[in-house]
Amino acid sequence: MRSIIVAAVFAILPSLSFADPLPSWNNTETKQAILEFVEATTTPGSERYLDPAARIATFDNDGNLWAEQPVYFQLIYALDKAKAMVAADPSLEEKSPGMKAAADGDMQALLADGHKGLLEVMAMSHSGMTTEEFKDEVDKWLETTKHPVTGRRYDEMIYQPMLELLTYLRDKGYKTYIVSGGGIDFIRVFSERAYGIPSEQVVGSSIKATFVVSEGDADTVKSPELFFIDDKEGKPVAINHHIGRRPVIASGNSDGDLQMMQYATRGGRNALAILLHHTDADREWAYDKGSKVGGLDKALEEANQRGWVVIDMKADWRTVFPWELQNR
Amino acid sequence: MRSIIVAAVFAILPSLSFADPLPSWNNTETKQAILEFVEATTTPGSERYLDPAARIATFDNDGNLWAEQPVYFQLIYALDKAKAMVAADPSLEEKSPGMKAAADGDMQALLADGHKGLLEVMAMSHSGMTTEEFKDEVDKWLETTKHPVTGRRYDEMIYQPMLELLTYLRDKGYKTYIVSGGGIDFIRVFSERAYGIPSEQVVGSSIKATFVVSEGDADTVKSPELFFIDDKEGKPVAINHHIGRRPVIASGNSDGDLQMMQYATRGGRNALAILLHHTDADREWAYDKGSKVGGLDKALEEANQRGWVVIDMKADWRTVFPWELQNR
Repeated sequence: MRSIIVAAVFAILPSLSFADPLPSWNNTETKQAILEFVEATTTPGSERYLDPAARIATFDNDGNLWAEQPVYFQLIYALDKAKAMVAADPSLEEKSPGMKAAADGDMQALLADGHKGLLEVMAMSHSGMTTEEFKDEVDKWLETTKHPVTGRRYDEMIYQPMLELLTYLRDKGYKTYIVSGGGIDFIRVFSERAYGIPSEQVVGSSIKATFVVSEGDADTVKSPELFFIDDKEGKPVAINHHIGRRPVIASGNSDGDLQMMQYATRGGRNALAILLHHTDADREWAYDKGSKVGGLDKALEEANQRGWVVIDMKADWRTVFPWELQNR
Repeated sequence: MRSIIVAAVFAILPSLSFADPLPSWNNTETKQAILEFVEATTTPGSERYLDPAARIATFDNDGNLWAEQPVYFQLIYALDKAKAMVAADPSLEEKSPGMKAAADGDMQALLADGHKGLLEVMAMSHSGMTTEEFKDEVDKWLETTKHPVTGRRYDEMIYQPMLELLTYLRDKGYKTYIVSGGGIDFIRVFSERAYGIPSEQVVGSSIKATFVVSEGDADTVKSPELFFIDDKEGKPVAINHHIGRRPVIASGNSDGDLQMMQYATRGGRNALAILLHHTDADREWAYDKGSKVGGLDKALEEANQRGWVVIDMKADWRTVFPWELQNR
């Protein structure tokens, strides 16, 4: 009799999850909706079951996997780099009004005239070196620079609940991708160690590169010319280009992610859109409509209309940043 | 005693391969060089050992994984499609000289004036529909069209030895990619079923796409404007863009693959370049320098200079096409 009970228990084991895969999420409707969708799409025999090959989940990065306040971290990198470039070669101040403004910390000048100065700084700070040299520089910067408000490394300012979601999805056979308006080469520096997302699963904005070959080496070199902006309408286009499949889970936090979510869900598709709403001014930041960084208006409206999953950071997340767990 | 021997045998089992992973390759130096490199990069403790994440292998497609004679198969698709478009709408003949030439089968007119007509046909035959519609059309074409010389489906004209190499590499923890001058959306239609290479591991040339959203759906739509040519210098650039890692195995068959091979190997890198030389006029085709399709000149020279692995199709391959195995 006892062995029958043991056998019965083991028979149902696979369908039970003993450990909560999302411990940093409060037990709200949000968490339930995510768990339900993932279970439904990965349990054989379920009406919503998806083949492993179709299990593509795309995540925005800024403000979705890591923080984006007071301003995109990559922009801080560009300004730091511009200052270092001007210090090393003061003639750059004459050659480029943008570089001068960056060196002076003059944000008003950088943003004037349609962000002309800022674009100049982004282009000059991100080019003129091989891709590998660029990545080394970003890596060093991440190691030595701290966030002005939290005093933490930028790559520590990642969201613990999203890390758990990424791991949970991968455990369930989902392939997790970053699809970011940020720079593809910039994100690749930390995506593997921060999120467990390998280089080849990072999609982002990019400047052109050229191939330079010499007797002793061969490299791609970054050029100061725009190649692709992976934001808004660009996101579905880039997903189609890089992955060639439609995502079934699309996760973002701003109007720049709306099109990616439409691409995943419209047409009555078996898909889940997840929108993160920054509502926690105490533990993180609270912002949406009208924010200069991560503005959220139309996507929230469409999320409410169409019943997408909206994460209310304050209500739904027990933990925001990983370091909070160390004090428990 | 016997159990000790059994235990000892089982202990060394993992390091032995009982079955030949490349049965369609003759036992020549070429095969040995490939096996040696793969074993050296995947055997823990070996000087040339590579972490699984670094095991990236990139393969050209036309003339390398499938045949490319008498002309690239995608070009045959474009001409077939152009004829069907003109049949459905004869006014296209007046609007586009290229479409008229395609409908008339006038290759001379198509190639005149810097291939102007041909580029027009490629653009018009590959655009004006969603990516998914395009893929469905290519799929139907592959199902219903036969190669003019072999009478086989185009997606059967794949090289058996390369299929074995792809499988062997994947078994050894390599991630296998296609990096082709051909169209990314075109190749994705058959890459999984023909080669076991999923959509997201296909890199190729592309035209622009736009995102079109309606109340009921959301799609990417193919535009008749060039986005990226994944050939020659474009290959390392695209590899860097899509994968973000340098390949350690680069396999190609024409001068269009030279830069990809340089990117993998120059700088004394722990990498393998494999060049396929079409030398078998009986079982396949024999061509190299001066061939209009798959021209091979500089890459062969550099391969010989630098000791890259050169596959002599006639000498090194026991089998060329999979159907040959059915008659044995």
